[in-house]
Amino acid sequence: MLIQFSIFPTGGGDSASGEVSKVIDIIDNSGLTYKTSSMATVIEGEWDQIMPLINKCRLKLKENSSRVYMVLTMDDRDGAIGRIDGKIASIEKRLNKSIQK
Amino acid sequence: MLIQFSIFPTGGGDSASGEVSKVIDIIDNSGLTYKTSSMATVIEGEWDQIMPLINKCRLKLKENSSRVYMVLTMDDRDGAIGRIDGKIASIEKRLNKSIQK
Amino acid sequence: MLIQFSIFPTGGGDSASGEVSKVIDIIDNSGLTYKTSSMATVIEGEWDQIMPLINKCRLKLKENSSRVYMVLTMDDRDGAIGRIDGKIASIEKRLNKSIQK
Amino acid sequence: MLIQFSIFPTGGGDSASGEVSKVIDIIDNSGLTYKTSSMATVIEGEWDQIMPLINKCRLKLKENSSRVYMVLTMDDRDGAIGRIDGKIASIEKRLNKSIQK
Repeated sequence: MLIQFSIFPTGGGDSASGEVSKVIDIIDNSGLTYKTSSMATVIEGEWDQIMPLINKCRLKLKENSSRVYMVLTMDDRDGAIGRIDGKIASIEKRLNKSIQK
Repeated sequence: MLIQFSIFPTGGGDSASGEVSKVIDIIDNSGLTYKTSSMATVIEGEWDQIMPLINKCRLKLKENSSRVYMVLTMDDRDGAIGRIDGKIASIEKRLNKSIQK
Repeated sequence: MLIQFSIFPTGGGDSASGEVSKVIDIIDNSGLTYKTSSMATVIEGEWDQIMPLINKCRLKLKENSSRVYMVLTMDDRDGAIGRIDGKIASIEKRLNKSIQK
Repeated sequence: MLIQFSIFPTGGGDSASGEVSKVIDIIDNSGLTYKTSSMATVIEGEWDQIMPLINKCRLKLKENSSRVYMVLTMDDRDGAIGRIDGKIASIEKRLNKSIQK
């Protein structure tokens, strides 16, 4: 499955990038396939791999923040793997052009 | 913490309400405090209570559907309980009027 | 259509309820059908009614905050009206029990 | 501001990629800066640029589908531009490593 999520403290200062960096570092060290954009991170794996990892990110942010907010979307499709790049490739093939400049 | 989520099959027919009913029934039987609206269900509890319950809902939908989509938001605030009703009451007090007719 | 959204400043203090109250007040004065839960507000109407209203809420929050975050979900279904209560009623009928205590 | 969104028909078949391709094509032709991932598209611009574009995508999907679902998140920060790439660069600088392999 693919899980996309954003997690951040809501009680802190105007820039949350220091806290968000800690989250990305935890994910980067997990060994799971992931991709980070300006708004969210997508991870590919199984529920039992991804959810403990996200919980670890949550607990890291709670160390410095009394309030943490998260948005998460899941696309859980039977037998579908390699989709972090595969879904884009499928769209590009249909449109017959590159959409990532 | 409060977790709001919507989960539904994306490969099925126009009305997903039969499948969604199964999800609500699982939550209703869990014993956790929850509230369902037209767009989502909010559950109050701890991460380790809520996430296994949501996983149970996911697995129930996967029985009949090859693809399941979920949107989830979390508001995790230290020492805050009774917030499913409490947050509304706090807003009504500030506005000095009832907002739930 | 139904649009569910949450909007809040991310650079402020631990409690955003004062700012959120202003948003609810704007929606309450709009005349559109809505329902507020602990995590989000659902509005029923047309795109051209709801989106300018949400923009008004955004601009109100920007008066006091340099950074505003929003999560929004839309369920746009042909010929479906009265669904803020209707979707719940449909689930209760299927389950043959009340889910709103 | 940055707006991330996913929009898809919920009444169709198992693969929505044909419909999603039409959406990406509309965005690609808009002239706005955007980036598509496996789960969502992020667009940078002003509210009055992005929202009419998203509405155009919605109406395109409604041509073939009686029901369309959308998830959208907004990060509206004063004076912040070039953030589709800038936010990633800021995190990489903090972590002192590349996070996009």
